[in-house]
Amino acid sequence: MSNTSKHLIIIGGVAAGMKAAAKARRESQYVKITVFTDEEHISYAGCGMPYFIGDVIKEKKKLIIREPAYFKAMHNIDVLTLHRATAINARLKQVVVKNLKTGQDLTFSYDKLIIATGALPIVPPLPGISLDNIFTLRTVADAVQIKSLVDSGKVKNAVVAGSGFIGLEMAENLSLRGVKVVLVELLGQILPPFDEDMARLVQSHLTEKGVEVITSDGVKDFEGNRENYVTGVNTGKRRLPADMVILSVGISPNTGIAIDAGIKVGATRAITVNERMETNVPDIYAVGDCAENTHLITGKPAWVALGSTAAKMGRVAAINALGGNDTFNGVLGTVIMKVFGLNVAKTGLCEREAIKAGYTVESAIIPASDKSHYYPGCKDIIIKLVADVNTKKLLGAQIVGEGVIDKRIDVIATALSFGATVDQISKLDLAYAPPYAMAMDAIIVAANVLNNKLLGRTEGILPQKVIERRNRGDNFILLDIRTEMEFKSGHIKGSLHIPLDALAARANELDRTREIITYCRAGLRASHACRILKSAGFEKVKYMDGSIMAWTYGLEK
Amino acid sequence: MSNTSKHLIIIGGVAAGMKAAAKARRESQYVKITVFTDEEHISYAGCGMPYFIGDVIKEKKKLIIREPAYFKAMHNIDVLTLHRATAINARLKQVVVKNLKTGQDLTFSYDKLIIATGALPIVPPLPGISLDNIFTLRTVADAVQIKSLVDSGKVKNAVVAGSGFIGLEMAENLSLRGVKVVLVELLGQILPPFDEDMARLVQSHLTEKGVEVITSDGVKDFEGNRENYVTGVNTGKRRLPADMVILSVGISPNTGIAIDAGIKVGATRAITVNERMETNVPDIYAVGDCAENTHLITGKPAWVALGSTAAKMGRVAAINALGGNDTFNGVLGTVIMKVFGLNVAKTGLCEREAIKAGYTVESAIIPASDKSHYYPGCKDIIIKLVADVNTKKLLGAQIVGEGVIDKRIDVIATALSFGATVDQISKLDLAYAPPYAMAMDAIIVAANVLNNKLLGRTEGILPQKVIERRNRGDNFILLDIRTEMEFKSGHIKGSLHIPLDALAARANELDRTREIITYCRAGLRASHACRILKSAGFEKVKYMDGSIMAWTYGLEK
Repeated sequence: MSNTSKHLIIIGGVAAGMKAAAKARRESQYVKITVFTDEEHISYAGCGMPYFIGDVIKEKKKLIIREPAYFKAMHNIDVLTLHRATAINARLKQVVVKNLKTGQDLTFSYDKLIIATGALPIVPPLPGISLDNIFTLRTVADAVQIKSLVDSGKVKNAVVAGSGFIGLEMAENLSLRGVKVVLVELLGQILPPFDEDMARLVQSHLTEKGVEVITSDGVKDFEGNRENYVTGVNTGKRRLPADMVILSVGISPNTGIAIDAGIKVGATRAITVNERMETNVPDIYAVGDCAENTHLITGKPAWVALGSTAAKMGRVAAINALGGNDTFNGVLGTVIMKVFGLNVAKTGLCEREAIKAGYTVESAIIPASDKSHYYPGCKDIIIKLVADVNTKKLLGAQIVGEGVIDKRIDVIATALSFGATVDQISKLDLAYAPPYAMAMDAIIVAANVLNNKLLGRTEGILPQKVIERRNRGDNFILLDIRTEMEFKSGHIKGSLHIPLDALAARANELDRTREIITYCRAGLRASHACRILKSAGFEKVKYMDGSIMAWTYGLEK
Repeated sequence: MSNTSKHLIIIGGVAAGMKAAAKARRESQYVKITVFTDEEHISYAGCGMPYFIGDVIKEKKKLIIREPAYFKAMHNIDVLTLHRATAINARLKQVVVKNLKTGQDLTFSYDKLIIATGALPIVPPLPGISLDNIFTLRTVADAVQIKSLVDSGKVKNAVVAGSGFIGLEMAENLSLRGVKVVLVELLGQILPPFDEDMARLVQSHLTEKGVEVITSDGVKDFEGNRENYVTGVNTGKRRLPADMVILSVGISPNTGIAIDAGIKVGATRAITVNERMETNVPDIYAVGDCAENTHLITGKPAWVALGSTAAKMGRVAAINALGGNDTFNGVLGTVIMKVFGLNVAKTGLCEREAIKAGYTVESAIIPASDKSHYYPGCKDIIIKLVADVNTKKLLGAQIVGEGVIDKRIDVIATALSFGATVDQISKLDLAYAPPYAMAMDAIIVAANVLNNKLLGRTEGILPQKVIERRNRGDNFILLDIRTEMEFKSGHIKGSLHIPLDALAARANELDRTREIITYCRAGLRASHACRILKSAGFEKVKYMDGSIMAWTYGLEK
């Protein structure tokens, strides 16, 4: 399809749909392009909505990147808002569309069709779910409603159900507006895509900032008053007062119209597409949150609904629909968020996912500085890397910290795309100057630490394993090798204290028959202590990864 | 060498040397380690010194990362400061060292020797060079001297000779202290490792911030007063008053002692080493600024003297010297600096270097936002990418801007390490959330723009080519397709104006026999204008890369 009078129809007018429309026009000045959306707005910044509610982004219009009139004037693209596509007839190559203003059904013929219907928030059918002031956040209309309720000053208490990225962003932005927020998560940890140890670092931060976090407890039902406004939430274990509830328990691909038309969906319940974004039905493409991806690490289908991926898929579908050839091979599940000044990001697999996918893994938790220690404004970050023991390739990374983490996660995402080994990452020629990095960037330090473990040069143990083993009564010595002052400022309950500079001399105070786990502030000195103890003839010694900086189980003085 | 009584000697106590020492101790608790340095301080942050002079870093002691006593106490490493290694006897495996305090010559035997003698600033033998207050900046002593002179309030005018990174950092930090700075560069552009078009963007910024920049003019001699203080600088073309001169015309590898010992140096005049950091002489390694590297793009010897590389080389040499096996394959020449709030970075080859290395290149200049447009604090960056037309692989990138560039240069450096094509870079799964990036990150947008040029989808021309062609009287139409208001706020002299939304209707006003070059603010609309003109039957149309944002040749109203 590359000439006059051909018709490209796109269903969906947000990220993937409008990117496909704009790219299609750049591919051909002649094709007729029509976009249908059942929403009032198109091309809006879904990811910016929590910040709009939090007053970080002041104007609604800033969220709306483009209006239909712009697309008509600049690109000769017809965008019909408040028009819901209700059926696809693949045999006749037609789409049936309902005009939501008039109720009229219209039929349009297409030569090529791109489905970009996005995802819908999951609304669990709990008692009281239809009460007022229970919201999901997906559209501009949702954001405006939530914001105006907050603006009214009537919201003292809010419950946010679900602790994914939207849940956490809402918890922050509502808190910024003076609302007391309780975050409720059914699972045993917040941030389900992350490992528990990294999620606990984020949870500590939320708690510090005044958000009450409840895990292992889900919403059972909602209470309301006579005016039908929500007043409270009952979990299995408690009643929480609530003038507002944000449901952020997940989203699911919006695929009804596709399934009805005989388009296949995969195990993820999103539409199956090949690298060209083609569905199983000729001339029909699917892109964005309604479509499935391939995970570049596992090679298996994955569903990662993100604006960044949507834009890339939309572009590829448009090129192919207009007779070109482009491919999109897959995703790493790279995600990032900012919550109360803490940056949180992940790419590739977390340790739990890697084990589940069948890998034999080695992991390391490494605290580091985001820039040179002596440069003003230098801040800490904590990196967790997970590698495949057999191939020595990196499988994924999680990073949390007030310092700069986005560049480190992007570097790792890039390296993962090319199947990098941990050793290759440790040798990358990254940019160094004091305002930007340490001479050996945090990523390089982290890769070296993990490589030392992979090669058996050092032996570490994650804090979570230490607490698990202590809880089941394992007989090991927990050895704090920090200075007297550090030890007094807070140490792990039950630990022994010998400062590093006295360790060689005092090693004989230690019981040689017991395993020793050393810790310091961040892990480096603890690892050095292991070497001293090994030289002194101790055999069962390990250092605690990330040490006190990664320890989220409390300290005593 | 892995056991008791073996002796590792390291000559040089800054980045590479001390990293090698510390890593060697981690490899073996038994080896005897001695470091000699002719300086007073070790392990100092050379890259932080301009910021110390500028009072950004307040205390000298912050620059000194570790003291000799620390290395003795913590790592049992003997560091002898003010001890200059004067000769290596490779046959006897001995080093002769002069104690600079006593004048005594001492001889030490080594089993393994690591040379980390660094580089020395180039001091051109010009008339008046021995006057007081003419400085190079390489050691802590240099920094302290310069800072105390500035602190004295006696410096009104300074001339900085040489416009590499140190020169620019000194120009900024002296300006911050209230000194009037003139930057003098012999070449036709500042920042010699960069392309002229990108360097001109930096030069404009320096000028805006009050630094006078003189190019194509070098220092000829210095004038002084009776007290032997410098008072002025004569270039070929003018006399500049100066109470202080900073010479930053380059550095050269400090290899005298190595050459005398029969150790080979390469074409770069730095010591030739293999991937294991071994020199041609058994048991002698060389690391850091005195040693040569391999350029990962060209595969040829390169000399890139940077703290980040020094640390990696030191680590590899230590592992190998202690009987292990590690390799360092080479560098991309990744560099970054901050100057008056402008970030400037490069990795891989610039266009000039790529052409010189024999590549057929395509390049693109792409302005972009560092985060989502609607997120507060979003800033511009300008990216130049250079690719190999034949393989479609990226060869290098340069980025300049007040926005975040370090992560983009690091992502590209990582991609270059794995031989990425431009298309692969455009599909990277980089982290997206409004505070960190656009949905399609600046790098992805830039790769798409360059890919469009590589695939012949679009045809662009760099601003520098436009000015060159105009200066030689080429008969093309320069077409400004921005809005009336934008045009009036400043446009390129001699350009025609037809707003984009009127272009299709008014295309027949244009002379079809002449080549047309379109421009807008950043290049996107100009590229769209080309498509409109092509649809209207125009054949010779190009858009100007980066358009007004990359245009450094002045505007008229």
